[in-house]
Amino acid sequence: MAQLMQGDITNWMNETTGALNSSGLVANMKEKAGMFYVGYPISWEWLATNIRIGQNYLVENTTLGIPALVQTEGIHGFLIGNATIFNSPIGYGSSWNRDLVRKMGEVIGQEARALGVTQIFAPLADLARELRYGRVEETNSEDPFLAGEIAYHYIKGLQSKNVSATVKHYMAYSNPEQGVNTSPGKKRWQPSYKRAIIDAGAWSIMSAYHCYDGIPAIADYHTLTSMLRDEWGYDYWVISDAGATDRICTAFNMCQDSPIDSEYITLATLPAGNDVEMGGGSLTIPALVESGKLNNSTLDTAVSRLLRAKFEMGLFENPYPGAPPDQWSNLIHTPENLQVARDLDRESIVLLENHNNTLPLKKSGSIAVIGPMAHGYMNYGDYVVYESQWRGVTPLDGIKAAVGDKATIHYTQGCERWSNDESGFEEAIEAAKKSDVAVVVVGTWSRDQKQLWEGLNATTGEHVDLDNLNMVGAQGPLVKAIADTGVPTVVVFSSGKPVTDTWIANSTAALLQQFYPSEEGGNALADVLFGDYNPSGKLSVSFPRSVGDLPIYYDYLNSARSITDSGWVTENSTIVFGHQYVIGAPLPWYEFGYGKSYSTFNYGIVKLDKTNATSTDTITVSVDVTNEDWSRNATEVIQVYVVDRYASVVVPNRQLKGFDKVVFGPGETLTVQIPLNVSDLGLWNVNMQYVVEPGAFDVLVGSSSQDIRGNATFYVS
Amino acid sequence: MAQLMQGDITNWMNETTGALNSSGLVANMKEKAGMFYVGYPISWEWLATNIRIGQNYLVENTTLGIPALVQTEGIHGFLIGNATIFNSPIGYGSSWNRDLVRKMGEVIGQEARALGVTQIFAPLADLARELRYGRVEETNSEDPFLAGEIAYHYIKGLQSKNVSATVKHYMAYSNPEQGVNTSPGKKRWQPSYKRAIIDAGAWSIMSAYHCYDGIPAIADYHTLTSMLRDEWGYDYWVISDAGATDRICTAFNMCQDSPIDSEYITLATLPAGNDVEMGGGSLTIPALVESGKLNNSTLDTAVSRLLRAKFEMGLFENPYPGAPPDQWSNLIHTPENLQVARDLDRESIVLLENHNNTLPLKKSGSIAVIGPMAHGYMNYGDYVVYESQWRGVTPLDGIKAAVGDKATIHYTQGCERWSNDESGFEEAIEAAKKSDVAVVVVGTWSRDQKQLWEGLNATTGEHVDLDNLNMVGAQGPLVKAIADTGVPTVVVFSSGKPVTDTWIANSTAALLQQFYPSEEGGNALADVLFGDYNPSGKLSVSFPRSVGDLPIYYDYLNSARSITDSGWVTENSTIVFGHQYVIGAPLPWYEFGYGKSYSTFNYGIVKLDKTNATSTDTITVSVDVTNEDWSRNATEVIQVYVVDRYASVVVPNRQLKGFDKVVFGPGETLTVQIPLNVSDLGLWNVNMQYVVEPGAFDVLVGSSSQDIRGNATFYVS
Repeated sequence: MAQLMQGDITNWMNETTGALNSSGLVANMKEKAGMFYVGYPISWEWLATNIRIGQNYLVENTTLGIPALVQTEGIHGFLIGNATIFNSPIGYGSSWNRDLVRKMGEVIGQEARALGVTQIFAPLADLARELRYGRVEETNSEDPFLAGEIAYHYIKGLQSKNVSATVKHYMAYSNPEQGVNTSPGKKRWQPSYKRAIIDAGAWSIMSAYHCYDGIPAIADYHTLTSMLRDEWGYDYWVISDAGATDRICTAFNMCQDSPIDSEYITLATLPAGNDVEMGGGSLTIPALVESGKLNNSTLDTAVSRLLRAKFEMGLFENPYPGAPPDQWSNLIHTPENLQVARDLDRESIVLLENHNNTLPLKKSGSIAVIGPMAHGYMNYGDYVVYESQWRGVTPLDGIKAAVGDKATIHYTQGCERWSNDESGFEEAIEAAKKSDVAVVVVGTWSRDQKQLWEGLNATTGEHVDLDNLNMVGAQGPLVKAIADTGVPTVVVFSSGKPVTDTWIANSTAALLQQFYPSEEGGNALADVLFGDYNPSGKLSVSFPRSVGDLPIYYDYLNSARSITDSGWVTENSTIVFGHQYVIGAPLPWYEFGYGKSYSTFNYGIVKLDKTNATSTDTITVSVDVTNEDWSRNATEVIQVYVVDRYASVVVPNRQLKGFDKVVFGPGETLTVQIPLNVSDLGLWNVNMQYVVEPGAFDVLVGSSSQDIRGNATFYVS
Repeated sequence: MAQLMQGDITNWMNETTGALNSSGLVANMKEKAGMFYVGYPISWEWLATNIRIGQNYLVENTTLGIPALVQTEGIHGFLIGNATIFNSPIGYGSSWNRDLVRKMGEVIGQEARALGVTQIFAPLADLARELRYGRVEETNSEDPFLAGEIAYHYIKGLQSKNVSATVKHYMAYSNPEQGVNTSPGKKRWQPSYKRAIIDAGAWSIMSAYHCYDGIPAIADYHTLTSMLRDEWGYDYWVISDAGATDRICTAFNMCQDSPIDSEYITLATLPAGNDVEMGGGSLTIPALVESGKLNNSTLDTAVSRLLRAKFEMGLFENPYPGAPPDQWSNLIHTPENLQVARDLDRESIVLLENHNNTLPLKKSGSIAVIGPMAHGYMNYGDYVVYESQWRGVTPLDGIKAAVGDKATIHYTQGCERWSNDESGFEEAIEAAKKSDVAVVVVGTWSRDQKQLWEGLNATTGEHVDLDNLNMVGAQGPLVKAIADTGVPTVVVFSSGKPVTDTWIANSTAALLQQFYPSEEGGNALADVLFGDYNPSGKLSVSFPRSVGDLPIYYDYLNSARSITDSGWVTENSTIVFGHQYVIGAPLPWYEFGYGKSYSTFNYGIVKLDKTNATSTDTITVSVDVTNEDWSRNATEVIQVYVVDRYASVVVPNRQLKGFDKVVFGPGETLTVQIPLNVSDLGLWNVNMQYVVEPGAFDVLVGSSSQDIRGNATFYVS
């Protein structure tokens, strides 16, 4: 029974002094011995030592000697001081680079395992379908296919180091009503979860906080057992999210919450298929087994799933996977690891606008660097360890490093992120005026895991939800003030989600989207700004024009977005009335898959290796793509969308079903081949059977979800 | 087969000249003889004459002599020139007055039948769950219980005149993705439909345009047959909405749309349970019956449902129900009918704010009347006949009639509704400054049925959707300019949905909500403004603070609206950061059921006639309520909400399950008794069975959904 509750390293290690509490160790392991959590801002040495103490106790002093899994967070880097910090998931989702994501997974696994950590609470298979929601930054994409590919390769990388992934948050989290964290879900969707869980073979899953159609995710027999076990055949284990068990009483009002009805909670969750309780305390397994209310076989099944993962990972053969301290620096935060972070980050940056080829910038003359996200601290997304923000390469650092003494840099903050105070504008305007170009870095911000939960101001992150996607405070006016100087102004959105200050698109010289950066973020940005890297990021999420236009995802169902005409207000304040909307449009500002390069690409004719197929076939889509730029390398994400022309139920207007990211030499033409699994093109019919229906499927090949460059058709019999 | 397609009076009557087209008559009746549509802006005489011609042809010249149903619109009045126009549904929903709604139904039935019209496409059982949606004004409420009660009494009134109601839009329309008309639905809910369809015995139903979970409403066997027929036992017929059949191909992409696949459409809709096609043309019944693809029994079933309604209505006994022309003026638009419109309208007006008891106004001194909705045309909601706006009592008319020569009125428009032009402000400010009080009427606007579909500017109405709920153009600034004069400013929102200019609440003297008015709207408003009627309207829909806070309905599921803290911006522009939201709150500005009176009410102790009950019991809730105002009559809506304390699935935090609207004399105390049907307190459990679960239910009695004045508990065994 102790296997099914999570312990915590602070039960035997004083977080402040590092001192050992032996009776705490015994007490923890008596009830919560299956795994323990270690995500605290402590030194590598304390961590490794106390992990070993816990593990040693279990192996040496308990009857069965079952080692524990050792757990922490890690959606964009192993969560401990001075490990490598990668950019946030919504960012690396925009890289569309499977190999680099896999390398990131390997780095995270290598760094974690070096200290004895064997399980990371990542990746998310959740989708960015509700942009008000604070955790958009933690998702890989709005799209199930892209999100699934990113999660898959993260897991493959991580688990290759024998560190367990934890796919979260099962299932269909991240689309809460009103955008409010933990609110009831609005839609169910599963391909990204299945790709991560089954195809990648994740050794564990975390269930979710929310309910869907009245059923809490943590107590949902349908998703946790019928789908996950009976249909998909998943063999490993499911853990609840922190505090999620109590919510059965406290939030969902299914039972008494004072005192909490542990019996109800246990019987609602464990038999439904939620095997393990995180932050154990609300389950009362022993009493229920004794009284016969909980079946012994339910217990055995849950435990066996966890033990299967432990065996599979080799934990019994090697309960102490940590490396000796003298090897830590060869494994953690190495130059090689940092290079992966930089490569991934720069491939994630999306060029939204580039009027008059303002970019790339020259490494000469003078450059103003302005904005509250330009320097002073790293603008990391959530899920970084306490005080991480003081470590890393800021945009100013990166720009300075890139230009060396070849150009003069005029830096000024302009305004605080959290304020309407415009008193710094004058200095910023001066800095711009004496420069050839101004780079203004603005956006949203989150906080490290300690500050976030202490409630320090932030505009994104877990439990930090927005009802307006415009930038907060003086940031918008700062951009305007700089642009109004007439100095070419390059705006960089440093953010965890789309911002909707749409006027910036055509009132400034260029616009870049860098989602929350890695610790190499400034270098990655400089690589793109100065053309040392030709931008190749493509938006992992659609940008709306206004919060009132949500949801804005590209793969809307046929019959949605039925637009008569859209209205707007002209520059002289005349209102041009429309219908969808009266003043506005339910269309994206920048669509999913969008992103410019400094080069252009020509797409040839789309060819299929067969035009008649069965539901088990793989079709190869071929297209010749040419880098039309003879002056430099360029990288393009060739995207394959499929349209099920007629279907027995209403299906999405198009769906991403394949992509490849390809590097082209100057002027080079390459034949790009992308496989399409016909079995992925099915639907759930009116009888809720998954079927690939016979008929025509149109293959759209393009540079974004809207910028389609060619198409072809095949028929399924 | 001809019974199953809708004909149209313009097939034999020239809409412009009134001339008869005999061959058109024959052609129409050959294929589309079950019913015909007559909703055109023509004279009473043309209408009655041509209805009789059509009916006569059917009875005299066809083999079976089956009379047709004669159909038009009528959600807030019989849709013909110079019939009585009532206020819009979202308005009369705010009256909470069952008797007056029933009287309105009787008036509509009487006026329609006088000209030979026997079927009205009303009422809606749809709910106002998505406030961006243009058709919010056509719904009765956000709440299933209130919407159901209003629909029920409308139908009972209408059908008492042997005119068929048509409950629409079956089922779960009005919650489209993005708020865009006809987009896929987001949630399914049914009590309002069942109350209207089954309890009130509606003789017909209109199905809906949208899809839910991938199934078009018009082709949904589950809702149209399993639920409606097998479960509920409904015996009458279902008609599609105009053009909805074609959408199977054109919008939902289930079949080829050029040329349209009539066979697919017919087989997708008719066997699913959609009996009749509106605006017939896409069904190909004869060929399919001949080929055996369509079962004869399917056809017989559909026809029998329609014929059953015709028999039940006595149409075979009296195919010509129209009254002789010399009696029309005794039946249509009579003083009695207008009085019902005025009574219902004034009971629908909601007093939102009344600082320093600014209201009621005195009928003396001088009053400025300002605003684009104050005069010049009637601000009717959609579904009124062409050019109706030039007929009716405007706010200015009503105020003038009320004060006679006792007060001076200074009227000025201030601005156009559709413009940012502020050039009229100066005159408006002058008018205010020379007055004791200013009444400013602003809001949203719709159009008559012709102008609306011609695309004239509007901010609400069918296919006119918003992505921002603030008032358009110069209206907000106009209010501010008048309020800034220091003259006490009474703002009247004349609108079809909530507006979100929240600053008005505490920056003006008083605030009234009058949803789109009846033709007696100005009189109704004056009744309230001057205290001839003590306001008693309660919001039928919650008001959000911002479009970014949607959805905002009060009966959210447990676990929703989990709020850590809310942020805001202070008057000196300091940002106070919160979390839900960072700057904002997912809470209503004014909640469902809210509305002030000029008087106050004291609620006594809530009593139940039993505290232990079974699922078939009725519990009587009793409470003594006192009008604390000794100076006047006052009317209160006593509202009963029920909380299912613990449930096996996640249920709404509270649900309206009873109410009574009661008139109190000065200082009077009355014992109000409200029945609660325990069978209404069920839920759909995890096995999708409807059950009333044993346990505790808390009864909350209050003056709004949040202003709870007392409670009691009972237990179901």
